[in-house]
Amino acid sequence: MYYIGIDIGGMSIKGGLTDETGKILVKDSITTKPDNPYPETVKDIAELCDKLMQKAGIDASKLSGVGMGIPGTINSKKGVITYSNNIKFENVPIVKEFRKHLDVPTYIGNDANCAALGEVVFGQGKGYKDAILITLGTGVGSGIIIDGNIFEGKDGAGAEAGHMGIQINGERCTCGKKGCWEAYASAAALVRQTKRAMQKHPQSLMHQIAAENGKVSGRTAFKAARENDKAGISVVNKYVKYVSEGLISLVNIFRPEILLIGGGVSNEGEYFIKKLQRQVSMYSYGGKRNPYVKVVKASLLNDAGLLGAVALCLPKNA
Amino acid sequence: MYYIGIDIGGMSIKGGLTDETGKILVKDSITTKPDNPYPETVKDIAELCDKLMQKAGIDASKLSGVGMGIPGTINSKKGVITYSNNIKFENVPIVKEFRKHLDVPTYIGNDANCAALGEVVFGQGKGYKDAILITLGTGVGSGIIIDGNIFEGKDGAGAEAGHMGIQINGERCTCGKKGCWEAYASAAALVRQTKRAMQKHPQSLMHQIAAENGKVSGRTAFKAARENDKAGISVVNKYVKYVSEGLISLVNIFRPEILLIGGGVSNEGEYFIKKLQRQVSMYSYGGKRNPYVKVVKASLLNDAGLLGAVALCLPKNA
Repeated sequence: MYYIGIDIGGMSIKGGLTDETGKILVKDSITTKPDNPYPETVKDIAELCDKLMQKAGIDASKLSGVGMGIPGTINSKKGVITYSNNIKFENVPIVKEFRKHLDVPTYIGNDANCAALGEVVFGQGKGYKDAILITLGTGVGSGIIIDGNIFEGKDGAGAEAGHMGIQINGERCTCGKKGCWEAYASAAALVRQTKRAMQKHPQSLMHQIAAENGKVSGRTAFKAARENDKAGISVVNKYVKYVSEGLISLVNIFRPEILLIGGGVSNEGEYFIKKLQRQVSMYSYGGKRNPYVKVVKASLLNDAGLLGAVALCLPKNA
Repeated sequence: MYYIGIDIGGMSIKGGLTDETGKILVKDSITTKPDNPYPETVKDIAELCDKLMQKAGIDASKLSGVGMGIPGTINSKKGVITYSNNIKFENVPIVKEFRKHLDVPTYIGNDANCAALGEVVFGQGKGYKDAILITLGTGVGSGIIIDGNIFEGKDGAGAEAGHMGIQINGERCTCGKKGCWEAYASAAALVRQTKRAMQKHPQSLMHQIAAENGKVSGRTAFKAARENDKAGISVVNKYVKYVSEGLISLVNIFRPEILLIGGGVSNEGEYFIKKLQRQVSMYSYGGKRNPYVKVVKASLLNDAGLLGAVALCLPKNA
């Protein structure tokens, strides 16, 4: 049994052909053209699938399904993209359009939800039925798995945990509201927090680290903190607090068995994850009387979306 | 078909015998004795049930079920109270114990979840399948209904929306964490906010209103605001912001069709509800492109818990 997973992003559309264990046999990608009308983009995706099958030496009759992870509000039941900022799609019946080109069972889901499903089916969350993946990247993505299934809110218009409010009248978020979790816990927010701390602390090691790196990044403060730079430690500790704030709210609402941390910042590894675990264990409602919630680094990284899209096609989820 | 609903509170245990439409035929209550061992409390509840049946002239063979709404973490599947602060129960197999006295199908649930189910089955939420009830009382209770069913988190240890964080390093909550929604949006929090504003504004109408009433209450600032007292208006507007902050987070996560507002503060009626509606509509993620979420006053008030406990017994939920 073979599957194709498609991960649609603002910059590129990645595709992978896998077997039923999630082993990626071939991979390829095309450039996203957000200004193209949707039928052309869908045609491009179908051509990408053809190319993958050719590369793998498999014809369409052997393909059991195609899954697509798409940013935005996705009505997975109807096979329609309600809207997606990144690729400028609104009310696009993508499944119907796609099957004009390649008539195999096709499933769609929000990209963050797919990534969470990917982790639960093929990655670090394997064996867990209640899991939440938080992706700390440009924004804060969240994918929520309840009893093995994606939870996406009514009509796919929920599960936007990045837009929980964690600070009244706080920093302005791209969504228009102030004080969203995303405005504090994304990698982009960490860079802002680092730059502010650098202005205040001209002697901090962060200046040297940024100069060596050519820019201030999400790693700058972490690198400085590991070398005991006081201002760097302060940035990291505050950032940990911000990330934990949303994690604890999610625990109090969902009480998952496991919290998976993905996205660029998760590369800080155990140094970062352990600090999050400590906060979550200490401040989740009911303390030790409620079930323990494990915090771990997500494992699929850049392939999470693609493999999650494949997971959409598997019998349990299809 | 007859049912008994039991609403267990820290002060009293209320019981009501109803028909299948939720019409309460007789009602009674007993005093909660938190220091009694649990078998005695359960025996008291069974006696309350006997009394209700006697009053209504119905014998146990006509009773289709008993439902109980209980504060705390409830494992409804196992029929066990994991723990309840108010009545000091921990790992109590209440269903098993109760059926020693009265052997009819017995169901339990968290009291806030029951109240939400009650509103959806018998009250203002009737006809809605995705609804959230927020109770603004001593604390902030939340009951979440997804597709007509109570959502209680893994092992019943979720749905504690009152303990979402809305302010980093904010006011200390009774749960031990700082900045919980409950510490800002409960009636008790409103009283604190009102007292602080009164200290700052000795000329405010709030002093006169509190004096007439004999104390500062959750109504003081609202009364002053309705009479255009500047300091009162400021307290109300800030409080609306605090309540909305959590409502918007819940919309972004669950996207319910309706938000029901209960508890003492909801008696401020349309004046209050309209302000909440405006905030929710303006700041929920995706704005008008996502489904509209209606904000309304809950209708069952003090009977919500009792009727929700009855709703637990109905075929759809039992």
